[in-house]
Amino acid sequence: MVRRTDTRQRMLDSAAELFHQQGYHATGLNQLVAAGGAPKGSLYFHFPGGKEQLAAEAIRQSGERLAELLGAIVANAPDAATGIENAIEALAVSLRESDFRRGCPLATVALDAAAESDMIREACADGYRSWHTLIEAYLTRCGATQPAALATVVLASIEGGLLLARTMRDTAPLRAVATHLRAALEKEIP
Amino acid sequence: MVRRTDTRQRMLDSAAELFHQQGYHATGLNQLVAAGGAPKGSLYFHFPGGKEQLAAEAIRQSGERLAELLGAIVANAPDAATGIENAIEALAVSLRESDFRRGCPLATVALDAAAESDMIREACADGYRSWHTLIEAYLTRCGATQPAALATVVLASIEGGLLLARTMRDTAPLRAVATHLRAALEKEIP
Repeated sequence: MVRRTDTRQRMLDSAAELFHQQGYHATGLNQLVAAGGAPKGSLYFHFPGGKEQLAAEAIRQSGERLAELLGAIVANAPDAATGIENAIEALAVSLRESDFRRGCPLATVALDAAAESDMIREACADGYRSWHTLIEAYLTRCGATQPAALATVVLASIEGGLLLARTMRDTAPLRAVATHLRAALEKEIP
Repeated sequence: MVRRTDTRQRMLDSAAELFHQQGYHATGLNQLVAAGGAPKGSLYFHFPGGKEQLAAEAIRQSGERLAELLGAIVANAPDAATGIENAIEALAVSLRESDFRRGCPLATVALDAAAESDMIREACADGYRSWHTLIEAYLTRCGATQPAALATVVLASIEGGLLLARTMRDTAPLRAVATHLRAALEKEIP
């Protein structure tokens, strides 16, 4: 017997992947139901708020999972410059191995749906805030003197690097960002 | 009598605005036709490739217009750090005055449509490349020693700053990027 929570989690996982690769509007209800492998009625049973609620929860889950991954990557690095460089390398590998389909898991939905749905916008904003908090805490532990502003620059330049790399089908922009951030972090954290 | 070119240009202008604010998939054919103020059949008359062709041409036009605007802004600045800062300030004003709807005119379409349409992806990539070329030429004139890599960092961090600012409904990420780029440019171009 499949438990309610299994079905719900499977729908959430497949929705997160579709929203990650395609954004909100390109992902139809039928595709969400088919990918989740559940009968059509079960979407509204598990997510009474429909596609909007499913997207907001999927975005929250994607934000948390990437935060866990990035946290584990930087925790294993000998210094801040290497930690951020290794995080960027992991994102570049994921982008390349997905044939340039898996960029930032929040960005497409943040741009194509947040303006019309406060629920989705808040989920995206909370995801970015959680990554910022993680990077700021990491840079603080490493000894940065202005960790909040530096974390914003790290996050913004990685997000922009992912956007350019995905569009150009070339990870060179991410590598340029990594090289720049290494120099900036070595200067800020001697 | 309305000339063919007037109708076509009006359709292109209104499509560019819709794709800028909403992306590709949220913008329906009916909305494109209504916004252009032309009869429905005229879309395929002027753009035989339909919505895909209209989007690719609108993206090319948006890329060129922003390049002209940015080129004019930096041309009037006394140094590279101020030029880039003024460009970011102009983008921040446009974002704020549009109630955080007008971020990068290419980014939403680049993320939500480029993976499925080579025509649209090439238009987005060409737009980013033209901005990169403009920034690189400007930094070269200002005396940068590594203008290509620096231009990539400038472009990526501005794009990421716009994405974060739009999602957070707060221009603080753009201001943090501007402050960082000023310091980086003053160091690279003494």
